[in-house]
Parts: sequence; C-alpha cells; structure tokens
Amino acid sequence: MKRVYSLQLALTLALVATLAARAQALAQTDPLPSWNDGPAKHAIVEFVQATTTQGSPKFVPPAERIATFDQDGTLWVSHPMYTQVIYCLERVPAVVKAKPELAKVEPFKTVLSGNREAMAKLSMKDLEKILAATLTGMSVDDFNAEVKKWLATAKDSRWKRPYTDLTYLPMQEVLKYLRANGYKTYIVTGGGQDFVRVYSEATYGIPPEQVVGTAGGTKYGYDRSGKPFLTKEPKLLLNDNNAGKPEGIHLMIGRRPYAAFGNSTGDRQMLEYTKAGDGARLAMLVLHDDAKREYAYGPAQGLPDTKVGTFTQALYDEAKKQGWVVISMKNDWERIFAVEE
Amino acid sequence: MKRVYSLQLALTLALVATLAARAQALAQTDPLPSWNDGPAKHAIVEFVQATTTQGSPKFVPPAERIATFDQDGTLWVSHPMYTQVIYCLERVPAVVKAKPELAKVEPFKTVLSGNREAMAKLSMKDLEKILAATLTGMSVDDFNAEVKKWLATAKDSRWKRPYTDLTYLPMQEVLKYLRANGYKTYIVTGGGQDFVRVYSEATYGIPPEQVVGTAGGTKYGYDRSGKPFLTKEPKLLLNDNNAGKPEGIHLMIGRRPYAAFGNSTGDRQMLEYTKAGDGARLAMLVLHDDAKREYAYGPAQGLPDTKVGTFTQALYDEAKKQGWVVISMKNDWERIFAVEE
Repeated sequence: MKRVYSLQLALTLALVATLAARAQALAQTDPLPSWNDGPAKHAIVEFVQATTTQGSPKFVPPAERIATFDQDGTLWVSHPMYTQVIYCLERVPAVVKAKPELAKVEPFKTVLSGNREAMAKLSMKDLEKILAATLTGMSVDDFNAEVKKWLATAKDSRWKRPYTDLTYLPMQEVLKYLRANGYKTYIVTGGGQDFVRVYSEATYGIPPEQVVGTAGGTKYGYDRSGKPFLTKEPKLLLNDNNAGKPEGIHLMIGRRPYAAFGNSTGDRQMLEYTKAGDGARLAMLVLHDDAKREYAYGPAQGLPDTKVGTFTQALYDEAKKQGWVVISMKNDWERIFAVEE
Repeated sequence: MKRVYSLQLALTLALVATLAARAQALAQTDPLPSWNDGPAKHAIVEFVQATTTQGSPKFVPPAERIATFDQDGTLWVSHPMYTQVIYCLERVPAVVKAKPELAKVEPFKTVLSGNREAMAKLSMKDLEKILAATLTGMSVDDFNAEVKKWLATAKDSRWKRPYTDLTYLPMQEVLKYLRANGYKTYIVTGGGQDFVRVYSEATYGIPPEQVVGTAGGTKYGYDRSGKPFLTKEPKLLLNDNNAGKPEGIHLMIGRRPYAAFGNSTGDRQMLEYTKAGDGARLAMLVLHDDAKREYAYGPAQGLPDTKVGTFTQALYDEAKKQGWVVISMKNDWERIFAVEE
C-alpha cells in the first residue's frame, strides 16, 4: 500500500504546485499593460482593490458597482471634429436628394458646396438644423442601418482607418479591468444615444442598454401592413452634457457611479456628482497633451480653447482642487491605440 | 493492489450514480411550481427552451435576451388603487404641514377631509396636482428615504400586509426562471420610475437601472456646503403608458424585448411591439378573474371597466387575434402570493 500512498502524495503535491504557480501568474498579470507606471495607473488599481476586496472598509457590493465613461475624447479620438458631426454632414446629400427644395436653403447649401472654410463658420443654430434633418424623421431601424453602413466605410482623415479602430487601448483596458472586477461599465456621452448604441457593443463591449446619451423622443406608429415601428422625433428629451450628465445618469441608471472618466468641461458635473458620494470614488480626466501620437489641446499647451471637448485651465484647477486624477496621454500611456500607429 | 483498484472503482461508480441522480433531479425540477399545468405554463417553458437551447432555430444570443414586465396588476396587487397613488394621498398632510396655505385649496382640502366618497370623485387634473406636490420639489435622496420609510409601515387594507409582500409568486417564478436562462428582466411600468426603483431590487431582484417607468426631469444643483444634488422637477419626460411603453423601452433599453408581460390596455403597445420582432416572441396578459383569492375585474366577469388597469373586451379580442397568451389567475395559478393567504 505504501507505493500507492506515495503516488497519491506525489500527485497531490504536483497539483498544489500547479495551482500555486497559476495563482502567482494571475497575481502578476498586469491588468493595465498599456499604462506607464505612475499616479494615474496607481489610482485605478488602488480604487479597484479598495472597492472589491472583501473586508476592505471601502468595499462596494457588486450590485452597486457602476462606472461611467464619456466617449468622445475619453474612449476614442474626437479631434478635430466629433465623428457624429462628420456623419451628419456626410448625410446631407442624401437628405437633399430626398427633399430637393433644401438644396437652395441654408445651412444645407453651404454643406453641399463642400467649402470647408464656410462650413467652419456655421453657427450652432445651423448645426442644429443639420442634426435635426439627419438624425430625426426616419424609423429607428432605418437610422441604425444607415449608421452601421456608414461606419463600415467612413475613415478618419489622419489615420485612414475606420473611426471604430481609433479607440484608446489604455481605456479599453480600464473597461475590461473594471468589468472583470464586477463593475457595470456605462458610456455617458454628450453624443447621440442612438448613434453610439449602434457600435458600442462591438467596439467597447458595452451593450446598448448601458449607453446614456443625448436623446430625443420617438413616436410609436404603424406601417401600411399594420406593423408597429418607432420614428425618431425632433424633440429633445435629454441634453447629456454638463449638468445633463448627472441628470441623465439618474434618469437612465438611477444610481450614483463609483468611478467616472471624462476629458472636458462637459464632464465636470458628472465627476463632481461621482465624487460627492460616500466611500471610495474615482474621478479621472484624460488630458490630450500628445501632439505627436494623437493631439495636444488644452491648458498645458497654452492653446486656445477649441470648439470640441475643451479641457480649460479652470477645469484643470478644479481637478487639482477636488482630487480628480488627470491622465496625461503623453506620460501615462505607453500605447495610444490598439491598432499599430 | 487489487483492493485499492476495487475501492477506486466503487468510489467512481458511486460518483457516477450521484451525478446521474442529480442530473435527473435537475431535469425534473419544475421551474414554475406555482403554475398549474396548462397552455400559459407551457407557453413560458416552450419559449425559454426555444430561445436558449443551442442549435434551436429560434436561439437568441444571451446579450439580446430582454424580458419586460409591467408592474401594477402584473407583478403585484394594484386593486382597488395603485400603491403609488395611496402613497401620494398619504403624503398630503406632510406637504400641507410644510405649506399651510394648501390646506384651503383643492384638491388638498378634499384629501385632508378624509371623505373617501369625495376623494373618489377627484378628476385626473386634481390627481396630477397631488402627484406633482408629493413626487416633485424634493431632492432625489429625500424622496427615496420617504418612500422607503412609508413602505416599511404602510399596509394593504385587505391583507393587512406591507405592499411589497403582495407580489404574485407565479410571476416571481417567471422572473427567476428567465434570469436563470440568461434573460435580463426589466420592469416597464406606468408608475413612477423613481418610486418603483426604491423597492424593485429587494422585492423582485430587479436593480434600479432595469426599471423603466413614468419619469420626470431632475435639476442638478448645489447645497450650501457646495455639495451637488438632484431635485425632482415637475417636468414630464416619459409617460410610460400605452405607446409610451415601447417609446420608453427604446429610450432606456434600446433593444426590442423577446418577452413582455402585462395586464391592461396600457400594455397593449408593449406587447404588439414585442411580438412584431423576428423569431420567437412571447406576449402574455394576466387576467384578474379570481374574486376569491384576489380580485375579478375585466371582460370575463362582465364587469364595467374600472379606473385601474383595465382589461377590456377589446384587449381580450386583440390577445386572441395576435396570439398573446392570457393567464387566468383562477385557473393557471396554484398559489397567488408567496406569503400564506
């Protein structure tokens, strides 16, 4: 019998050794390999450990683990123009084809001219007319199909790649790291909720029901065969920017996030609201300070505020005062994109 | 060595026997034990098997598995008055205490009188004034705390139990059965989204972010110490009844449900919209036809339409025509409540 016991003992020891090695390997696996060592990376790891370790004084029950992410400029490139605005401008010819009387009416006339200088001078009111004409009036299903078709072929002018390729690898790692630790990840975007929902699942692993964005009403009706469908209406329900972000979070989620990520003044209230909760709360801002690998715009460059996703000096000062962690693209990110640059 | 092998063989056989018995027990475990055998129970089981069995022509990928449930009259008792309306009426004295000038103004004067006959005659416009006064004007946190406090002590007048005790056991089983098969379960209620969110998780296992309901706007602001908070505003964003249900589902979820459950005309469009999707779709209506164990109101009793959750003859005819399955409380449910009746 002795030999049998020896065999069993040897097998048991081998198993224990294997398990121990595996546990060590897991512990050593860096969840954020594209992040350089520094305060930003440390803040994320410390937050996750504090809120998910049983017995930690800052432990958060799994059901309450909510993290919200701005999209444009936080998860993907939004410079020099929002992707959705490019979509709307490129949809104008199709809209005018369906309604030829618009060809002679501003702002459509200017957009059709292709004169970029004139287009850059369009007012917010002009832009609203373009958004209304290209984002409303069609069925939800038709809109989804149009956006999907456009995203499959449209390309960023600098990188010559589909927009959905230009997400930030370090932020994709944060999304996965939080989810692996029981966090529900949400996009909370000033962009159109319906627009972002078309690609959020494939691009970020975030399902449509976890996308909060600027949202318009829909109208329920029936087609000729009696089949019901929803039409996108030019009626604004939620302007998911600035104070609209916490308001949108309450409307769509109903819980205060434990972590929030942004990159511009439009995210200030979301970060404030997140940090105002009890216990451990993480608020982070992506600073675009990498002119070579991406773009540099914001206070650190002494550049003027741009129209898109402004990171003002006031926001920078507020971040320092409130304990929000600023992420320097240049210093904190070893790589920018998942695709080769 | 022979004895050792025999021992191993015996242990292996015992293990196999145990696993086989367990598999059989699992297969035989009825996921809907409070349901009597019949077409309603069969429809639910067949739907779940068709949409979750790999290789089934009607298989639905886990990410798309969405099921929506009306609340009042579908998941819990809503007769003779909605629980939320009772809450609002019982809040009136506190509101008047804070604003004494309301004591002499209608409809508050009538509510304070306690004259039930007069209260029953209040118009929809009167009711709206009461809802606005009791559901808006306070912070989201104060509102949540008030509702929680009220629910802990308020009792249904017939059963002398907290309202949250009066959920239907058969529907709780459906919620669990669907979730065990990868469905995300949502409440889609004509009731107030913020009201239902206070108890949905403890009562149904449905987290706040999976409650879609009639929703008002909130306003972001700061208290004297500079701490941000949200105030409930008397501004209707979503009237989550009738056509508002599919509109609300699009706004809050962004996907068409595969299964929908209701009990009144207010659920008709949600069921239509659900059934209009491709593949297997389940639409069910709870019919209150059990005067003894709960209530009987609707076409089967030849009773007139009531103000609350009407199941009209037209809805009954529509259900038959569209293949929606009617659940008879009297015949399909072996038990009504989880608590003893």
